[in-house]
Amino acid sequence: MSADGELRAANERYAAGFRHGALPRAARRGVAVVTCMDARIDPLALLGLELGDANVLRNAGGLVTDDVLRSLAVSHAVLGTRQAIVVGHTDCGLHGATNEELRVALGAAGGDFLPFADLGESVRENVRRIESFPLLPETFTALGYVYDVRSGRLRSL
Amino acid sequence: MSADGELRAANERYAAGFRHGALPRAARRGVAVVTCMDARIDPLALLGLELGDANVLRNAGGLVTDDVLRSLAVSHAVLGTRQAIVVGHTDCGLHGATNEELRVALGAAGGDFLPFADLGESVRENVRRIESFPLLPETFTALGYVYDVRSGRLRSL
Repeated sequence: MSADGELRAANERYAAGFRHGALPRAARRGVAVVTCMDARIDPLALLGLELGDANVLRNAGGLVTDDVLRSLAVSHAVLGTRQAIVVGHTDCGLHGATNEELRVALGAAGGDFLPFADLGESVRENVRRIESFPLLPETFTALGYVYDVRSGRLRSL
Repeated sequence: MSADGELRAANERYAAGFRHGALPRAARRGVAVVTCMDARIDPLALLGLELGDANVLRNAGGLVTDDVLRSLAVSHAVLGTRQAIVVGHTDCGLHGATNEELRVALGAAGGDFLPFADLGESVRENVRRIESFPLLPETFTALGYVYDVRSGRLRSL
């Protein structure tokens, strides 16, 4: 937990050394990275990208939900991206979980939290959803990877 | 655009110097940051957080959509977060845009891309959505900020 005063003091230190004020709005490398919210993932660094290079989309599981498709459409139309890089990862909290377990943990009567059984198949399905999304042009490409949170290594799919 | 070989070579360099292999799965600071996909935003650094401290949720606009609420529920239940920090930002591509403009840019007949007219009000509404989400406990808190992409400074709401 973080107090407002603590966060603002930390931000004051960040702003004092800030050197990104001239970055353009458009993603410089034309890339949108789609990955999980997991605290161990540094999406730009693990792909050799820098701040300003890429739009970054993150949710539980790094899944291509309707909200990610909405975001990719905006990213393409407004910010000039032409490629998505989908990065699933090892030890994901949704990998091998069940909705029933998650409902019990949350005291919820229902709800689909989108757990998945097969990591590689999940990433491939996410790539297919982008490739078949009609609001993105045929020339918009998608690549899929699995990231190992223990070694820092990407595996192609 | 990035070729697969280029990305994998960049990742090889990242993995060679990797030093985060022992991070725990749970977010160390118990925090989930919700912000925009914008390429200029470094969500951890601007809040004084480090890799491992926080789950990070990002979409077009940094909006608390149903997918973000799903993700926050998983983040709380599986990864132990107890607080969300919502960060909107200046010069957002969705701020002041209209669905009609976005549809024209995408050649789309319909679709709601969730543009918004008032940045501060958007962030406040996103905070309210988290606070009133029934799957998160009363003790789960949310803070809202606006980040200035030119100065690196946060403004509290």
